[in-house]
Amino acid sequence: MKIKFQPYGVIAEAEAGQTVLQAANAAGVDIEAVCGGRGTCGKCRIIAAQGLGPLTEAERRRLSPEEIAQGYRLACQALIEGDVAVVVPEESRISEVSILSTGIGDSVSLDPWLATYAVQVPEATIEDQVADMDNLVRTLAAAGAPALRPTLTAARQLPAALRADEGRVTIVAQGQRMVRIVPASTGVRVLGMAYDIGTTTVVGYLMDLQTGEQLAVASLLNPQTRYGDDVVSRIGFSRDDPQGLDTLHHDIIQAMNTIIERVTHQAKVTPADVYAVVAVGNTTMHHLLWGIDPEALARSPYVPAVTEALGVRATELGLRVYPEAEVWTLPNIAGWVGADTTGVLLATRLHTHEEPALAIDIGTNGEMALGSRERLITCSTAAGPAFEGAHLSCGMRAADGAIDVVTINHRVEYHVIGDVPARGVCGSGLVDLVAGMLQSGVIDSTGMMRDAEALRNGNGSELADRVVGEGRQRQFMLVDPESGAGGRPVLVTQRDVRELQLAKGAIRAGIQILLKELGITAADVKRVYLAGAFGNYIRPTSALAIGLIPEFPNADILPVGNAAGSGAKMALLSRAALREASAILEHVEYLELSGRPDFQEEFAEAMIFGASG
Amino acid sequence: MKIKFQPYGVIAEAEAGQTVLQAANAAGVDIEAVCGGRGTCGKCRIIAAQGLGPLTEAERRRLSPEEIAQGYRLACQALIEGDVAVVVPEESRISEVSILSTGIGDSVSLDPWLATYAVQVPEATIEDQVADMDNLVRTLAAAGAPALRPTLTAARQLPAALRADEGRVTIVAQGQRMVRIVPASTGVRVLGMAYDIGTTTVVGYLMDLQTGEQLAVASLLNPQTRYGDDVVSRIGFSRDDPQGLDTLHHDIIQAMNTIIERVTHQAKVTPADVYAVVAVGNTTMHHLLWGIDPEALARSPYVPAVTEALGVRATELGLRVYPEAEVWTLPNIAGWVGADTTGVLLATRLHTHEEPALAIDIGTNGEMALGSRERLITCSTAAGPAFEGAHLSCGMRAADGAIDVVTINHRVEYHVIGDVPARGVCGSGLVDLVAGMLQSGVIDSTGMMRDAEALRNGNGSELADRVVGEGRQRQFMLVDPESGAGGRPVLVTQRDVRELQLAKGAIRAGIQILLKELGITAADVKRVYLAGAFGNYIRPTSALAIGLIPEFPNADILPVGNAAGSGAKMALLSRAALREASAILEHVEYLELSGRPDFQEEFAEAMIFGASG
Repeated sequence: MKIKFQPYGVIAEAEAGQTVLQAANAAGVDIEAVCGGRGTCGKCRIIAAQGLGPLTEAERRRLSPEEIAQGYRLACQALIEGDVAVVVPEESRISEVSILSTGIGDSVSLDPWLATYAVQVPEATIEDQVADMDNLVRTLAAAGAPALRPTLTAARQLPAALRADEGRVTIVAQGQRMVRIVPASTGVRVLGMAYDIGTTTVVGYLMDLQTGEQLAVASLLNPQTRYGDDVVSRIGFSRDDPQGLDTLHHDIIQAMNTIIERVTHQAKVTPADVYAVVAVGNTTMHHLLWGIDPEALARSPYVPAVTEALGVRATELGLRVYPEAEVWTLPNIAGWVGADTTGVLLATRLHTHEEPALAIDIGTNGEMALGSRERLITCSTAAGPAFEGAHLSCGMRAADGAIDVVTINHRVEYHVIGDVPARGVCGSGLVDLVAGMLQSGVIDSTGMMRDAEALRNGNGSELADRVVGEGRQRQFMLVDPESGAGGRPVLVTQRDVRELQLAKGAIRAGIQILLKELGITAADVKRVYLAGAFGNYIRPTSALAIGLIPEFPNADILPVGNAAGSGAKMALLSRAALREASAILEHVEYLELSGRPDFQEEFAEAMIFGASG
Repeated sequence: MKIKFQPYGVIAEAEAGQTVLQAANAAGVDIEAVCGGRGTCGKCRIIAAQGLGPLTEAERRRLSPEEIAQGYRLACQALIEGDVAVVVPEESRISEVSILSTGIGDSVSLDPWLATYAVQVPEATIEDQVADMDNLVRTLAAAGAPALRPTLTAARQLPAALRADEGRVTIVAQGQRMVRIVPASTGVRVLGMAYDIGTTTVVGYLMDLQTGEQLAVASLLNPQTRYGDDVVSRIGFSRDDPQGLDTLHHDIIQAMNTIIERVTHQAKVTPADVYAVVAVGNTTMHHLLWGIDPEALARSPYVPAVTEALGVRATELGLRVYPEAEVWTLPNIAGWVGADTTGVLLATRLHTHEEPALAIDIGTNGEMALGSRERLITCSTAAGPAFEGAHLSCGMRAADGAIDVVTINHRVEYHVIGDVPARGVCGSGLVDLVAGMLQSGVIDSTGMMRDAEALRNGNGSELADRVVGEGRQRQFMLVDPESGAGGRPVLVTQRDVRELQLAKGAIRAGIQILLKELGITAADVKRVYLAGAFGNYIRPTSALAIGLIPEFPNADILPVGNAAGSGAKMALLSRAALREASAILEHVEYLELSGRPDFQEEFAEAMIFGASG
């Protein structure tokens, strides 16, 4: 069977019985599949006239009769039966997202893994037939350099390097390993890569290990996104598809290689100048980066395969940097608190604080840590997806067409990312919107959306026309069809509000339990770090208004950007920082919320909207 | 152009201007090329009627008018001009050679690199969410095992292994590295490979590291032989051909992989059971095994790139054993005294002897060591090729058709390897023959062959008819045309006798200089080890008769077989032996004969044939 994807003009072979989504993935055509192809999110709409099997129950549920009449299908449901031409509409394409590439913690003192030594090695003679390597080692020792041992790569380079420039050579050493030997006339740049492997976005920083300077940064949508938006979908794909683990592993390596090409091109250097790589990510991303089966993470008791920092040669992973480069990940803390949180802790240094401080990192998952050098506790909530647009009818990532700021002050105003019509709402916009709906009385503190009638009679009368439908079907029209992309409105449903409420409740309950576990109150907390893309863009006033975080009367609230990435950069620039990461692992405690008898009670309370909730 | 090789029926593409030898190498057709394709050895005879360029000067020198009339050409000289059919006659084919696969020194106490641990790891629980690897490490520590750190391979294996057999796992560890983790129900064999990479022959031993038992042995002609019989030809090929180093490196790896397949097939195990590899070889083979440029070995001051033991993961070299297996070579001693001599010293333990002992290893090169635990000196002579059949008109390796034993007692008797007509003489046969010619008066102590007339009048009258020609063209017919392969006689020329004389002189001079350097005489030597293929098969009486070695009135003379290979096996079975090899490197001195002012004088004296010479 042949399948053609428009507007790309891509033609690929497909087998009868494959879904359109499978064929698209095989052909490298990106289609949104937030639920991982289970037919529940309804995001993978495509248009096709013929060549596909009959409509499924899931499609009838997710598509309107008008859409069905127009030929809309769900790519994950529609089975290929013959040659088919498929249109992938704008809203189903995976687009580049706004990423957060700055952070804190750049004040690390330079203490890198790599060192260079320049020596002039005297020629061997018939009276002193010293082997090249012995000659070099002897010369290095006389120059006061530490003892180094050769790698095979360096041993292969030595004979020619030694004879190219009258014995003058430059040695690049990683710890005690000689990793590269070049004639002195060949200049040497010693660079490194730090990565934050997010569930949604992969960010890479090219760092100069001799100066500590950041030379370039680039990011990419995590290509695994085609197998689902959240880690649970990806673990499912890894488990159910015989090639799943391999595919997800190679997706990450491929993304890292693409980023290396981009940043080295930007900085006018070569990938072979990169001698060290440090990566962070949540525990699932960590496992997939290494090609380790993450299945146990998704089943009680939710344990990782590995926590300790792992290091291997770049060639073993297929990373296209200098072949002897070592690749490290920071240690994981627990199944749902990964190396990214270790990065946040390294950057915020919570483990050294004299007084209690809180760090919240809300990406696709929400992790938090509370404490000080006395005691430091982390926990994780499955709260994230709502803030990144998944599982919401109106939700989307912070990409072009996303509403990221909303104010409701009698009338509704909003800001759309990019100069395009609105397609949906991203996390920060949603928190603004719900805060506004709450303050204007469109929803009450239980999260119930009032009907238009009640609003007309109350103080939300200007907004009453925006509320349509009844009961669970009630919706708030944020953008009318005339203004929306593709003539479609942006509607926030009662169910969307409930999803946000669940997410907010989980995070708030996590904070409450951490406070309780430490025996302190919000007033004792002296600093709050908001990390991650969502944490950086969310307006603290809106977060407080809906009760995502409690009032911290004595705390500074600091957005700290991509603190996980900052932690990776610190570990890349400083051996002491990597050692400190291991020390953090010893110090930090992990609290499993599902194991707490009081979690349900806290969660129920935390579901109430409002500043006091 | 098409070229067809008979009797193989191989048809290959060739380019105009290529030599037949280049086309044969590209097509995988083995043709003898002892001189490395320089047109000097005359061994690469082929027969072709048309399609080749005109005869070269070298061909006119090496081929008789009758041969030229029959269409004989030299494959290394004849240029392809059109489609051509080539016959590779029997005598130009590279045949399997007799190899020496036994040795001494098997009394090493088992202290291998690999250990196995069997434990039952308790399940993690929601109250104790320990990561799989932490859980395993904890269990190992409780069982009293030493601290182990995971490799990536083991980390990948752990989650499934832990859940396959109720937590019962077997760990294979190499030193502190966990290299493999399997469910206890999967049996584990822990095997290793020891290799002797000879210039001519590659021998591999499959060893059981749990019992010390040798499970299988296999050998292969070194495929590099097609680029020349001696190391100097190969270094030349590596220098002159842009792909030369790569080709020679991959030839060795390929040979090692072929041997792994054969021995594991013989022993009914799999290559993935092989966790450790130790190899020895001369310095050139050592460098080519690692892919290190050997060029400096061939130019004064003859220095190696590396002496110290090198170790890398098998996958880095492309060896098809267990991916985490480590590959080691024993250390080299000097440019012309390699890891193979270190292996001989490890096996003979000269460095621990109370009284002086001598070890001579004559393969393609001749290395020797003399001394005791007080002081131990090695040196090398470029003597070998004559003993392995190269550079002699009648010479050949110890393969089918080679005369390996000769006795002359009025009449000439000889033994041919294999049940075939004689094609030439191998080293041990040549030493016998020259000893016999000397004792029967066919040659005098200066190496001059007497003419038939003089012999008829002396006591060699029965042999007079075998001497033909005059002066430098004089020849001794060992086998007449009726008995020889292809109707060709086996003739030993005056020049062949000179070649042997040079080789014998070099070795003898080396022994004399070692004795002098130590300030002892042959009478002080208490043991002589004859190692290597030639050392093992040569008859000591013949060696004494020509004066290859002096009389050792107080010494036992012991043939010790492939002592270099025995050394490799010892280092494979015992960590202490590998450490001892490094200690030997500290202890042993290297004497560069070309740097000795008295070498020429000793060499001139040592050229004299006879027991006292």
